[in-house]
Amino acid sequence: MDSSPGSPVIPVILSGGAGTRLWPLSREQAPKPFMPLPDGDTLLAKTAVRALALPGVRELVTVTNRDYYFATRDVYAGLADAQPAATAFLLEPFGRNTAAAVALAALHVAARHGGDAVLLILPADHLIRDQAAFASAVRRAVALARAGALATFGIGPALPETGFGYIECGDRIADARAHEPPAFVASRFVEKPPLARAREYLAAGNYVWNSGMFCFTADAILDAFARHAPALNAAVLPVWERLAANGAAAVHEIDAALFAAVPDISLDYAVMERAAPAGEVAVVRGSFDWSDVGSWQAVSDLTEPDLDGNRGRGERVTIATSGTYVHSEGRVVATVGVENLVIIDTADAVLVAHRDHLQRVKEVVGELKARGHEAYRLHKTVARPWGAYTVLQENPGFKIKRIEVKTGASLSLQLHHRRSEHWIVVSGTARVTRDDDVFLIGANESTYIPVETRHRLENPGSEPLVMIEVQCGDYLGEDDIVRFDDVYGRAPA
Amino acid sequence: MDSSPGSPVIPVILSGGAGTRLWPLSREQAPKPFMPLPDGDTLLAKTAVRALALPGVRELVTVTNRDYYFATRDVYAGLADAQPAATAFLLEPFGRNTAAAVALAALHVAARHGGDAVLLILPADHLIRDQAAFASAVRRAVALARAGALATFGIGPALPETGFGYIECGDRIADARAHEPPAFVASRFVEKPPLARAREYLAAGNYVWNSGMFCFTADAILDAFARHAPALNAAVLPVWERLAANGAAAVHEIDAALFAAVPDISLDYAVMERAAPAGEVAVVRGSFDWSDVGSWQAVSDLTEPDLDGNRGRGERVTIATSGTYVHSEGRVVATVGVENLVIIDTADAVLVAHRDHLQRVKEVVGELKARGHEAYRLHKTVARPWGAYTVLQENPGFKIKRIEVKTGASLSLQLHHRRSEHWIVVSGTARVTRDDDVFLIGANESTYIPVETRHRLENPGSEPLVMIEVQCGDYLGEDDIVRFDDVYGRAPA
Repeated sequence: MDSSPGSPVIPVILSGGAGTRLWPLSREQAPKPFMPLPDGDTLLAKTAVRALALPGVRELVTVTNRDYYFATRDVYAGLADAQPAATAFLLEPFGRNTAAAVALAALHVAARHGGDAVLLILPADHLIRDQAAFASAVRRAVALARAGALATFGIGPALPETGFGYIECGDRIADARAHEPPAFVASRFVEKPPLARAREYLAAGNYVWNSGMFCFTADAILDAFARHAPALNAAVLPVWERLAANGAAAVHEIDAALFAAVPDISLDYAVMERAAPAGEVAVVRGSFDWSDVGSWQAVSDLTEPDLDGNRGRGERVTIATSGTYVHSEGRVVATVGVENLVIIDTADAVLVAHRDHLQRVKEVVGELKARGHEAYRLHKTVARPWGAYTVLQENPGFKIKRIEVKTGASLSLQLHHRRSEHWIVVSGTARVTRDDDVFLIGANESTYIPVETRHRLENPGSEPLVMIEVQCGDYLGEDDIVRFDDVYGRAPA
Repeated sequence: MDSSPGSPVIPVILSGGAGTRLWPLSREQAPKPFMPLPDGDTLLAKTAVRALALPGVRELVTVTNRDYYFATRDVYAGLADAQPAATAFLLEPFGRNTAAAVALAALHVAARHGGDAVLLILPADHLIRDQAAFASAVRRAVALARAGALATFGIGPALPETGFGYIECGDRIADARAHEPPAFVASRFVEKPPLARAREYLAAGNYVWNSGMFCFTADAILDAFARHAPALNAAVLPVWERLAANGAAAVHEIDAALFAAVPDISLDYAVMERAAPAGEVAVVRGSFDWSDVGSWQAVSDLTEPDLDGNRGRGERVTIATSGTYVHSEGRVVATVGVENLVIIDTADAVLVAHRDHLQRVKEVVGELKARGHEAYRLHKTVARPWGAYTVLQENPGFKIKRIEVKTGASLSLQLHHRRSEHWIVVSGTARVTRDDDVFLIGANESTYIPVETRHRLENPGSEPLVMIEVQCGDYLGEDDIVRFDDVYGRAPA
């Protein structure tokens, strides 16, 4: 791509997926792409870095839920050496599966760069460590895409995995240059098979795992939507027309009413399964490692075991313990006489699961949801456009929060009907608006916001502001807030 | 005893024992007798209630570590309907096993009530639910004690337990009245036996578990010490002489230097094993249930199982889980695909142990101690004479505490060199002394204590005072405190 001639290659990062099998680290409001891995990085950051390290790539398109917009921007802002020259966001009001997301991304890329531009579709929850092999596979897929194919990436199956889809490889496509990863005409897509079938695929040798990554020109995939998924195509076009009215905006908020009419189906199902028998799909067999980090087993595999096969992070004491993964965030976790467990300790929830039953962790999320328990949805620390807050303690009559405000950020001008607030700055500087007064308070200084008093908190300084807030009142719900003015567009019009 | 003639019966509560197998609920600073059981009560409270419910008992003697004095007093103050008319404390500077504790208690009781007074020795970590059967056994033991015997309480063994000592019963002692529990001459004390031996004892039928409870007159046990344990006796007498100088004080603090010279041995080993062959020991075979709550298995047995054999308290989600006990204090604990585990979740530590290895939990405590980790010693919530505090968050530069001050209580007049403090009252009323000012602050009010400023906090009100303290400073250790005046005697003379 780099020095090669041709249309631009635009990575499209699909960042959806709650990752309920990774509870309690993954939550509805902090899903899998944002979950820190044992090395401290998130899957989303790794995906963006992987995309931006490809030669010639300077721009990212991200399709994600609108609730994750600020968090996504924060992740991108944290990519030290790999800032994209441009980022565009397509913000979904709710998930509508990959077909809708890819169709809208293709319409966006076609409008901005022309129909020849190449989309590289990258789910945000994949882990690939061999960047050179990945780049090599992408180079081949881009060439096939420019020749008109719908290219996919297949992974040589290491075991008869029943949690993945498979692609049957047909005729080999002649290599255009030496040392390229092999490519084939895809003859068939098959969904997650039973074990016996998966074993047959493995033995046959011409089946690969369907990685969920794709590569095609905007024109090719839009043409395929029109032919293979006309109903979806018809529903997506009005969504796009509404967005296109935005012109060149970098952030597109998808209309909820129109989006609700789009079928909730995957790109594989809508297009690939139909296009393959017609010979339109090419599969590049990648030689890179690949994981969709679908369960705690995959996360555990990312860490080095000790002599007893125990792994993990944080303060651990292991007595007569083997094969056990422990994630601890602050507490000490002690194990005695156990084996093959996964133990995940977070601020408000603890998971203890046997390795053989990790697929059932999602049932915990279902049960918590049924009970109306917040632990399926939120972490104790909640990201906000201006920073984050952590509830340290909540009791009848009072609630204590640790509030961190980013440099230059500002909370909305607001008022509470039923609580007053004591603010104590522990580091940085706060600019406080209280009724008509505006004043600064620094570390080890405090102020008081009575009920029914308009107030705003800002960080005018060059370091993060950390503040302890003690709320007092008979009702302390987050919904007791009247916003008058909000730089993030959260105030009523 | 009630209407029966005779000398007074004085229960002596021995409250030592860290209970390391019950970590993380039991800590060095909050040991087993203070650990809340699933019903919310502590073993110490249950022991005191059991003793005070015996007919005619009006007074308690407690032998415990001086660090547990205020906590013990709080437990007794919380005994709603069973306040003793008098309580005496013998406070040890460190543990010296049961022989020393019993000898000092006997000297104390003899001095106060005469040598005929009967001591009923009750370890504070026993659970007995059948009060009537217990009272019946005590009545028989008191009668035997008044006749000069060293009486013990044996429990009919339910299984070949290897964690208890056993007593071999010799000749039966003729019953003095109908429906009394049987009593025997004890012919032999045996320490914790191997399994094969324990099975033989069970089959033989004339062996009972050694409960660790005893009953004798002060004269009888002091005479036995003099004859069977002369070295210990000689070392204990100077300790007592120093205490006796206190006269009628209710709280005796044992001299550390003198106490260090007392042999660290059990009453069984020092006296009972030697007195039994001489026919001086009687054993009353109790028909009551008895547990020394020695491990998480015993705690688990106190709760009712659900249909899957799972037990516990707190918010739990159990998926494909059986035979598992979960103790949760605030977090939700989810289990998936596990069986026969014990999971104990506390503010700063989590234990996951298999039921077959619960005896090894104490190894965790040893490991934490070796690492210098505080979780073997302290809970997040620390009891103080005036109430309690909980560290909510500790970061470089600031620390947040929740402070609860009992009605009428007062913290010391104090000063910190390196931290200032922000106080926010969330319920109750605080009287604040700050340099020469004394003022009241109520709920939803705050004040500020700068570094190097003398201050005192009191609760003058009729409800508990709850306050949030935010400390700011470059050093936040508990040892940055200069005490000028302390109602609990903690200020330098």
